[in-house]
Amino acid sequence: MRALVLERAGELSLRDIDIPQELGPRDVRIAVHTVGICGSDLHFYHHGRIGPFVVEAPMVLGHEASGTIIEVGTAVSELAVGDRVCMEPGVPDPTSRPARLGLYNLDPGVEFWATPPGHGVIRESVVHSADFTYKLPDSVSYGEGAMVEPLAVGMHGVTKARHKPGDVAVVTGAGTIGMVTALAALAGGCSQVIISDVVAPKLELAATLGPITPVNVTERSLREVVMDVTGGWGADVVFECSGSLAAAQDIFQLLCPGGCLVFIGMFQELVPYDTVAAMMKEARVEHVFRYAHQYPRSLALLGSGKVNLKPLITDVFPFDRAIEAFDYASHMPPTSVKVQIEVAG
Amino acid sequence: MRALVLERAGELSLRDIDIPQELGPRDVRIAVHTVGICGSDLHFYHHGRIGPFVVEAPMVLGHEASGTIIEVGTAVSELAVGDRVCMEPGVPDPTSRPARLGLYNLDPGVEFWATPPGHGVIRESVVHSADFTYKLPDSVSYGEGAMVEPLAVGMHGVTKARHKPGDVAVVTGAGTIGMVTALAALAGGCSQVIISDVVAPKLELAATLGPITPVNVTERSLREVVMDVTGGWGADVVFECSGSLAAAQDIFQLLCPGGCLVFIGMFQELVPYDTVAAMMKEARVEHVFRYAHQYPRSLALLGSGKVNLKPLITDVFPFDRAIEAFDYASHMPPTSVKVQIEVAG
Amino acid sequence: MRALVLERAGELSLRDIDIPQELGPRDVRIAVHTVGICGSDLHFYHHGRIGPFVVEAPMVLGHEASGTIIEVGTAVSELAVGDRVCMEPGVPDPTSRPARLGLYNLDPGVEFWATPPGHGVIRESVVHSADFTYKLPDSVSYGEGAMVEPLAVGMHGVTKARHKPGDVAVVTGAGTIGMVTALAALAGGCSQVIISDVVAPKLELAATLGPITPVNVTERSLREVVMDVTGGWGADVVFECSGSLAAAQDIFQLLCPGGCLVFIGMFQELVPYDTVAAMMKEARVEHVFRYAHQYPRSLALLGSGKVNLKPLITDVFPFDRAIEAFDYASHMPPTSVKVQIEVAG
Amino acid sequence: MRALVLERAGELSLRDIDIPQELGPRDVRIAVHTVGICGSDLHFYHHGRIGPFVVEAPMVLGHEASGTIIEVGTAVSELAVGDRVCMEPGVPDPTSRPARLGLYNLDPGVEFWATPPGHGVIRESVVHSADFTYKLPDSVSYGEGAMVEPLAVGMHGVTKARHKPGDVAVVTGAGTIGMVTALAALAGGCSQVIISDVVAPKLELAATLGPITPVNVTERSLREVVMDVTGGWGADVVFECSGSLAAAQDIFQLLCPGGCLVFIGMFQELVPYDTVAAMMKEARVEHVFRYAHQYPRSLALLGSGKVNLKPLITDVFPFDRAIEAFDYASHMPPTSVKVQIEVAG
Repeated sequence: MRALVLERAGELSLRDIDIPQELGPRDVRIAVHTVGICGSDLHFYHHGRIGPFVVEAPMVLGHEASGTIIEVGTAVSELAVGDRVCMEPGVPDPTSRPARLGLYNLDPGVEFWATPPGHGVIRESVVHSADFTYKLPDSVSYGEGAMVEPLAVGMHGVTKARHKPGDVAVVTGAGTIGMVTALAALAGGCSQVIISDVVAPKLELAATLGPITPVNVTERSLREVVMDVTGGWGADVVFECSGSLAAAQDIFQLLCPGGCLVFIGMFQELVPYDTVAAMMKEARVEHVFRYAHQYPRSLALLGSGKVNLKPLITDVFPFDRAIEAFDYASHMPPTSVKVQIEVAG
Repeated sequence: MRALVLERAGELSLRDIDIPQELGPRDVRIAVHTVGICGSDLHFYHHGRIGPFVVEAPMVLGHEASGTIIEVGTAVSELAVGDRVCMEPGVPDPTSRPARLGLYNLDPGVEFWATPPGHGVIRESVVHSADFTYKLPDSVSYGEGAMVEPLAVGMHGVTKARHKPGDVAVVTGAGTIGMVTALAALAGGCSQVIISDVVAPKLELAATLGPITPVNVTERSLREVVMDVTGGWGADVVFECSGSLAAAQDIFQLLCPGGCLVFIGMFQELVPYDTVAAMMKEARVEHVFRYAHQYPRSLALLGSGKVNLKPLITDVFPFDRAIEAFDYASHMPPTSVKVQIEVAG
Repeated sequence: MRALVLERAGELSLRDIDIPQELGPRDVRIAVHTVGICGSDLHFYHHGRIGPFVVEAPMVLGHEASGTIIEVGTAVSELAVGDRVCMEPGVPDPTSRPARLGLYNLDPGVEFWATPPGHGVIRESVVHSADFTYKLPDSVSYGEGAMVEPLAVGMHGVTKARHKPGDVAVVTGAGTIGMVTALAALAGGCSQVIISDVVAPKLELAATLGPITPVNVTERSLREVVMDVTGGWGADVVFECSGSLAAAQDIFQLLCPGGCLVFIGMFQELVPYDTVAAMMKEARVEHVFRYAHQYPRSLALLGSGKVNLKPLITDVFPFDRAIEAFDYASHMPPTSVKVQIEVAG
Repeated sequence: MRALVLERAGELSLRDIDIPQELGPRDVRIAVHTVGICGSDLHFYHHGRIGPFVVEAPMVLGHEASGTIIEVGTAVSELAVGDRVCMEPGVPDPTSRPARLGLYNLDPGVEFWATPPGHGVIRESVVHSADFTYKLPDSVSYGEGAMVEPLAVGMHGVTKARHKPGDVAVVTGAGTIGMVTALAALAGGCSQVIISDVVAPKLELAATLGPITPVNVTERSLREVVMDVTGGWGADVVFECSGSLAAAQDIFQLLCPGGCLVFIGMFQELVPYDTVAAMMKEARVEHVFRYAHQYPRSLALLGSGKVNLKPLITDVFPFDRAIEAFDYASHMPPTSVKVQIEVAG
C-alpha cells in the first residue's frame, strides 16, 4: 500500500510499502482518511531520532489519525463497516500492572504508532484494536477526528488538574498543545484562560477561541495580568505547555494558595525548581505522559459543540503532496497551527 | 425602612419596619436592588414554619439578593460605595470547627437571612459582612446577581460531584434548582445533560439552555434514554433535584460503574435506598447543604459568559407589587421559573 | 481430584470430581492448602442459591484460599514452583471497559470461584491466572493467606473511605467482615475504632485486637459513645458491616460534618435513608463490591506485622472433616469467627 | 517573667522580660512546661535571621511547647484550669481567604511564635488562643506534647500524600523531621518505610522505630533497595526530608507509576528538576508549609499508642541550663535527635 515513508533522517518518500496486516478477532481494518503532522513526526524527519528511539529502518510517519472502518474482526460488535472513526495511537498490554490500575499510558510495553520500530499511519489503511478505535459523532469531521489526538493531551492535563468549576487557568505557550489545552480547560469547567507566548499571531488566534486573554510576555508581565484578573489571589491552575525555561521561571508566583501546576510541555533540560516558592503556596504539581481514557471524553465534548477544533486546522494537503506538507510544517508561518494530510482525499 | 413583612402564616404586609443596622468595621451597607422568591419564602408565607424554624414574630422575607453598596466599614478596602454586588445570605462563625476546616456552611451557628428569627432582605437596605458580599462583573445584571444564590446550590452540587471533563450528567427535576444545576454541570465541564421531569413546558425551556436532552418521564423511560445516549454505559453523574420518591427509585440504574449520585433536592420522607444496586456500581453518593465557596466561582462563570441565567428570570415585579409577586409565585404557570422583586425599581 | 462438592441444596459430598485444568501460558497450577468458609458458601449449602445465582449442577465450594505453586505457565516468570501463595478468586476480562478504568471488580464478566456455574477451590489443586496469584511473605501462614480474601473486603472499604491519618472510625457489626474492617482501618491510618454489635463474645474478642472500643448496643447508645470519644464532633468514617436495618437507622448521626459512610454489609431489604440527615453533615457515602487491587496492599500490611489475622482463625478442620466443618460453621458458637479447612493437611 | 532571650545573633540570656499578656475572651493562659529546640531556633541564635525574618530586638526563642492551663477567658468552655495541653504556634486570621478555604497555614498574616518580631515561649507563661490549644491525652507526657509540633509537619506531609493503606513509603533524610515523617507514614497507613541518610547512628535509631528499613546511601543505592523491596515497581510515596540536592537527584526513579513525591525538607538552592522523569511516572508532587489541622489527628495517634515519640526525645535540660541546651543542640552528637528544655521542672 502507498505510504509516506521516512527512509532515513531528512529523506521522505511517498511510495508503496508492504506492511503485514492480519485482522485479529478484536481488530478493525480502517481506511485512513486524515492524518495530522505532529512535532514528533517533524523531529524524526529531521533528526532520525527522539531520545532513545532511533529510526533504523524505513518507517511510516504519522499518529494523529481518523478514517473509515472497512473490515471488522469476528469478536467486534460495537463497530461496523462504514463507521467514521478516530484511533488512539498507543495500545498497551491490558494485563500489565499499570494497565490493570487504569494507568495504561504508563505501561512501558505500549506500542505507539510512528515510534521506532513501529510504523505510523500516513498510509492507505491500518489494522487497529477495536478497543482503541472510537466512532466520530456525526457533527465531527475527519479533520477534527484527527485532531482528537492532540486534544487528548490537553484533556489529560485538564483532567489531572482536578480543578473546580469556574477556576481561572493559565496556559503558558500558545502552540498546538497550548491551544487545545486552553480549549479543554474551558470546556472542562474553567471560567477563563490567560494564555502567554512570544508570538503575536498565535496569541491573536488564541484570543478568538473563547474567554481567553492573550499575554505577549515580550510586552507585559504574565504575573501582573494574572494578579489583575484574579484580584491578587493567583490562578487556580497553570498548564505549562511551552517547554521553555523562561516560562518555568517563577511559575509558582502565578498560582493561588493551594493551586495546581501541570507540566505538559516537553523540556530539553532540567528545570531549576523553586521548592520554597512551591511550599509557600503548597502547590500541587502534576505531570502528564500522553493520555489515558481521554478519547471518549474528548469526542463527547466535540460532539456536543463544547469544543471547536476547526480554527486550529489551518493547512490541509492532499496525500500526493504529503512531502510538501512536511516541508511546509517544518517552516510554518506563525499563523499556522495544525497541518494535516488527507490520505483519502 | 420599607420591607415585605411576613406578619404570620398567610399574611404579608408591605410596610415600614425598624431594623437596627449598625455598621461594623468589616461590614458594608447595601441598597437592595433585586430579590428573588425562593420556595422556602413561599413555604414560610403559607405555613409559617419549615421544620424546626417557626415564625413567631413579624419577619422580612427574601434571601436571593443583589444591590448597590452605599457605605463601607472602616476596615473594608476591597469594596467601595457604588459597587454593584450580590450577597451570600448565610454568615458563619469563622472560628467554628467546620468553618476552620473550610466547611463553613456546616457551622450550626450560621446566621441565614429569612430564617427565623433573622430577617430577610426584601427591604430597602441591609448591613452585611464584606466577606460575604461579592462584586458583580459589569456584564452581569442585578437580576442575574440575585440568581447567584440558587446557582450556587447547583454549583455546589457540581463541585461535590468531582466529575471529569466531558462526563455525561443526568438531572432529575426541571425546577429552578434542576435548571441551574444543569447549567452549572455544563459550565463545569460536562459534555451534555439529560434532564427529566413530568411538566412539559419546563422541559421545553430546559432544552433551549444548551446541549440538554429533555425526558418527560410520563412518556419515556429515563433509564432507556440514558443508556441510549451513553451506549449502555450509564451516566457519570446523577444530580437528584426533584425531591421525589418516584425519581429516587431505581436511580442507581442510571449510573455508570463508579458513578456519582448527588442529592440536592429536599425529600419530605425517608428514601428507600437500594444498597445492593449501589454496590454493584460502587456508586459514590454526595449530599449538599446550601453551598460554600461558590459565589466567586459562580460569578466567574457568569462574567465570562459560560452561564446565562437570563432565560430563567421569567417574571419581575416592582417593590410595591411584592405581595402580588408572592401570590403569583404561589400559583405559578409551568412556563415560569423564577419570580423576582425589584426593590430599587 | 478430591473435592468438597455441593450436590444440591443441603447435600455435601467429599468425593472425586473431574475438572478440566489446562495450564495457559500466564497460568499457574496450585496445590490448595487452606480454604476458609464464607457466609456465601454456607448460603449456597443451605439454600442452593444466592439471588440470581442458582446451583443447578454439582459445584465445588470455597473461594478464600491459599496454597503452593506446583506448575507455572510458559509466560510466567514472577512466580515459581514451591512459592507459597494466596489467590484472588475473581478474574475479570482485562479488556472490559470497567477493567480498563481500573475498576476490574465491576466487570460484569468476572469469573468468580464458587459462584455458579464456576467451581470453588475446596479441592486438591486449581489452575489460576498468575496475575491474580500473590506470594505470601515468609511470616504469613497459609491460614492467614486464606484470610486475605475477607481482609481485602475490609481493605477495599477502608481505601474507599479515603480517611486521613488519625481519623476516628466506627464499625457497625462485629462479624468477620466487621473485624477485618476494624483491623484494616487501624492499619490503614485510623487512630481508633469504635465497634458495635449485640453479641458480647464477639465484642470481647474485637476489644483485644487493638485500640478498639466495643459497644454492645443492647446496653449502650452507640451515638453517645461516639460523641463522648470525639468530644461531640462525630466519627470521621462509619463502616456499616452489619447489614442490619437497626444499625442503619440514624447512622448519619454518628458522623462528623463532612464525614464518610461506607456500606460494606449486605442488606436483604431497601434501607430507609435519611437524606436530610445526610445533607446536614454533607456526608459522602461509598459502596464496595468485593475489592480491586487489595491483595498486594493487604499482604504488605500482613508482612510488616501491621495486621494480625491469627486471632480471627478460631477453628481449623482437616480436609476429611470438611462436611463437619460446614455443619459446625452453620451453627457456630459466638466465640468463633473464621472456620477453615486444611486441604493439604 | 523569666525567659530565654536572644539578645542578638550569637547572644542568649536567661533573664526577666516584660511581655504584655492580656487575656481575651477566647484565650487561655498557660504555664509553659516543656519546649523543644528546633533548627530554626538554632538558626536565629547563630545568624540572627532566616531569610526575610531578621531579629532586630531581643526575642524569646522556642515554639515547640506544652504546658498547663492556669487561666481561661470568659468565652472558653472546652478547656479548664489544670488541663495539660500543647499549643499550635501559629495563629491565623480566621477571616482571611486562605483560612476560609481551610488552608489557614497559608494565610500570610499568620502570627507564629519566635518569628520576628513575635516572641517564642521558652518562658514561664504565655497567653494563647484556645482554638489553637489542645488537651493532651492522659498517656501523653509533656515532653511528647512538645514534640507534637514537629510531628505535625510529618503528619501534614503524610496527609498531603493521600496514600492508600499498605503503600510503601520512602523517607529521604533521617533527622527529626524525617523520623517523625516515618512514624506518621506508618501510623497513617503505610505498610513499611525505607529511610535513607548518610549518618549511621541516625539510621540505627530509625530502624528501631517500626518496620523501617535503613539505607546508608554512602554504602548502598537507595533505588536498588526500593526496587528490591517493591519487586521493581517503585515506592508509592517519597517524602523528601533532607533538603539535600544529592537526595533530590534522580528522586523520581524511586517512584512507582502514578506515585507521589512530597517535598518537606527545606532547600537552600533551586532543585534541578527532571520533568521528563516525572512525566514517565506521571508523578504527583506535593509541598507542605508547616501544617494545618494536624494537632488533633497527631494527638489522636499519640493517645491510642499508634505513634511513640519517646525514643526521639534524647536530651532534656532544666530551664536554668537553657543556654547550655542551645549550645549542646548546636553541636549535637549524631545519636541525639531532639533536645528539650523543661521550663517547669
